[in-house]
Amino acid sequence: MADRIRLAEGGGGEATAELIQRVFWSRLQYPELLKGNDASIIEIPGNLSYNSSQGFVSPGGEAVHKETSRIAVTTDSFVVTPWRFPGGDIGRLAICGTVNDLTMMGAEILGLTTGFIIEEGFSVRDLEQIVQSLADTAVEAGVKVVAGDTKVVNKGAADGIYINTTGIGWVDPLIHLGGELARPGDQVIVTGTMGDHGAAILLARGELGIQGELQSDVAPLNHLLKPLIQKFPGQIRVLRDPTRGGLATTLNEIARQSSVSIHLEEEKIPVKPQVQGICALLGLDPFYLANEGKAIIICGECIGEDLLRLLHQHPFGTAATVIGKVASANPGLVSVRTGMGGERILPMGSGEQLPRIC
Amino acid sequence: MADRIRLAEGGGGEATAELIQRVFWSRLQYPELLKGNDASIIEIPGNLSYNSSQGFVSPGGEAVHKETSRIAVTTDSFVVTPWRFPGGDIGRLAICGTVNDLTMMGAEILGLTTGFIIEEGFSVRDLEQIVQSLADTAVEAGVKVVAGDTKVVNKGAADGIYINTTGIGWVDPLIHLGGELARPGDQVIVTGTMGDHGAAILLARGELGIQGELQSDVAPLNHLLKPLIQKFPGQIRVLRDPTRGGLATTLNEIARQSSVSIHLEEEKIPVKPQVQGICALLGLDPFYLANEGKAIIICGECIGEDLLRLLHQHPFGTAATVIGKVASANPGLVSVRTGMGGERILPMGSGEQLPRIC
Repeated sequence: MADRIRLAEGGGGEATAELIQRVFWSRLQYPELLKGNDASIIEIPGNLSYNSSQGFVSPGGEAVHKETSRIAVTTDSFVVTPWRFPGGDIGRLAICGTVNDLTMMGAEILGLTTGFIIEEGFSVRDLEQIVQSLADTAVEAGVKVVAGDTKVVNKGAADGIYINTTGIGWVDPLIHLGGELARPGDQVIVTGTMGDHGAAILLARGELGIQGELQSDVAPLNHLLKPLIQKFPGQIRVLRDPTRGGLATTLNEIARQSSVSIHLEEEKIPVKPQVQGICALLGLDPFYLANEGKAIIICGECIGEDLLRLLHQHPFGTAATVIGKVASANPGLVSVRTGMGGERILPMGSGEQLPRIC
Repeated sequence: MADRIRLAEGGGGEATAELIQRVFWSRLQYPELLKGNDASIIEIPGNLSYNSSQGFVSPGGEAVHKETSRIAVTTDSFVVTPWRFPGGDIGRLAICGTVNDLTMMGAEILGLTTGFIIEEGFSVRDLEQIVQSLADTAVEAGVKVVAGDTKVVNKGAADGIYINTTGIGWVDPLIHLGGELARPGDQVIVTGTMGDHGAAILLARGELGIQGELQSDVAPLNHLLKPLIQKFPGQIRVLRDPTRGGLATTLNEIARQSSVSIHLEEEKIPVKPQVQGICALLGLDPFYLANEGKAIIICGECIGEDLLRLLHQHPFGTAATVIGKVASANPGLVSVRTGMGGERILPMGSGEQLPRIC
C-alpha cells in the first residue's frame, strides 16, 4: 500500500478491500462489521426497559436477553460525478443505494438519514432539484427520511455536492441472508442487464466524445425483492447489489465469504449492446461496471424457475436470468465460460477502473 | 435567500434554518424530522414478524401496533478544518458529536456508522491516526461502529477528509426529552465552560497570529448524563449540546420549540479567560462559539441542586452551573442580564461567524 491514498482505494475493488482491512478493520473489531455484508445486523431489546446495574431488563424486572429485534444498518456516501446523469441524479442514487443495501439483507426499511456536504457557490435551484428527486425516490420506494444534516464547505473544498445516506431496517427473525451462505449447487441469477449505471456515467462525463441514449438503471429494488424473500425463506441464500466493482467483484466477495467457487456462462449474462459498445471502445469489461438497480441472487436450484417467473412480472426484473452455478472446488474462484468454450478467471477488480461512479 | 449556497448556510444559525426549511422540510415531511431535535425517534416492532398484507404481526398472527421499541436516530457530517486540533481531531469529533446527539435524546447507544470521504493524496499515516482516534473514542464512550463506507475523491474535490457518523440508540419508554418540553420556572444549567471548541479551532487555524494553550472540549457525554436522565425522569425536560451556533443559538431553538422565553445571567455563564481573550480580540461572542463536550440541561427547579452536585462529581461536569431561568412572557426570546444590570437580547446566530467548526 502506498503512503498516500489513491483513487483506486475508493474503487470498490482489491485496493479498497486492502485499505479497509489495514486501516479500519484492524482498529474497529465489531464482528458484524468484519462480515463485509452490505449491511450489519445489530440486536436490540424488544419491549424492555434499561437498568444501569443489570442492563436490559424485562418489564417484570429480571434481566433478559431473549426478546430481541434484529436491526439492519448500512451507510454509504455518494460522490458521483456528474451529479446529474441520464436516468437519475445523486438524490435518486442516494436513496436507491441505501434502500438496496437494506433490501439485500432482507430488511423492512424503517428509516433513512441524509447528510449533505455542499460546496459554497452551489446553485440553490440545483440543490432543490436534487432534494426533490431524493424525496420522489423515497416515495417511490415507500421509505421515510427521518433525520438529516447539512454542512457547507468553502469553494474548492468539495466538488458540488456529496450525500451520505444511512439506512435502518428491521429483519424478520425467519430471514437469514448473507454473503457467507452460498452453497455448492446453488444457482446464480441476475435481475437484469449488467453495467448500465457505470456506462451511463462514463457517457455523461462527456469525455468519450460519443453520445448515446443509455440510461443509468438506478432504482429501488425493495418492491421487487421483498416479496420473494418472504416467499422463499432459506432458499434464497445471498442477495447482493453489484455496485462499485460490478458483477465480478461482488461475486469474488461472495466466493470468498462462502468458501465456494462460482462459474458463469458468458452468453447468459445480459448486457445491453450500447454497454458492450462503450466497453469495446474503451477496453473495459462490463462485468466490472457498476449497477444501481440490479441484484445478484444466489438460491437453491429447486426455486430457480419459480423465482425467474416472479422476477419477470416486475418492471425491474424483466431481463432476469440464471447466469451460473456455485461449486465447491477452488474456493474463492470466479470464472466465466466464453462463447468459444474456453474458461477465463474473473479476478476481483483492482478498483482503478472508474472513480466516483456512485 | 441567494441563488447560490453561502458558507453561512452551513453555520448552524438563521441561514441554516432557512435553507433547511425551504429546501428540505418542504419536501421531506416526516413529523419527527420537523421537530428539529438532535435526533429523531422512530418506533419499531418488538418481538414481531412482518406480513405483507397485514404489516407487523405478533408471533400469534394478529396485527398489533403496541409492542414497539423507540429508536433514536441522528446523522452528522464532520468537515472541521484543520482536521487535527489541540484536544482532538476529526475522528474523536465524529464519535463525540453523534454520541452526544443520541445522549441528548436519552438514548442508550446501540451502534454508530462511519462514512469516510477522503481526498486523493491524503496521507495513509494520517488516516490511520484518525481511525485510531475514532476507535479509541468509541471505546471511551463504550459504543460500537457497526457499519462503514469509504469513498475517495480526486485531488481538489475535498479538503483532506470528511466523516459522516450516524447513530442509533434505544430510548427507554419512561424517558421523554425534547426541545419542546421546557416549562416556565425551569432552570437552565450548562455542564461547563462555553466556547472552548470554537476558540480552539480558531487558534488552530493559525490565522490569528497568536498562540495559546487552549484545548477543544470535545468529549463523549453519555457517561456523565445517562445516570442523571435515569435518576430524574420527567424532571429533566431538555438536553442539548450547543455545537454549531453555540449556547445562544441552541437556546433560541429551544425557546421557539417550547414557546417560552429564556433569561440568563451573564456573570454566571462560565467562560475560560483564554476564550474571553480570543473573543475580545476578534469581536466574537463566546455565547455563539461551538462546544463539543458540553450540554445545556433544562430541568425542574426542584432538582437543580441535586443535579449540580452529581454533575460536579464527574470530570466532564466540574464547572456545571445554573445560568438562568425559563419564563412564559415573550415566547421565543432569549436574553442575558449583564454585569452592569442591563439586559440584552441574544438573537439566533446568523451562521456567518465560523464556517467548518465541526
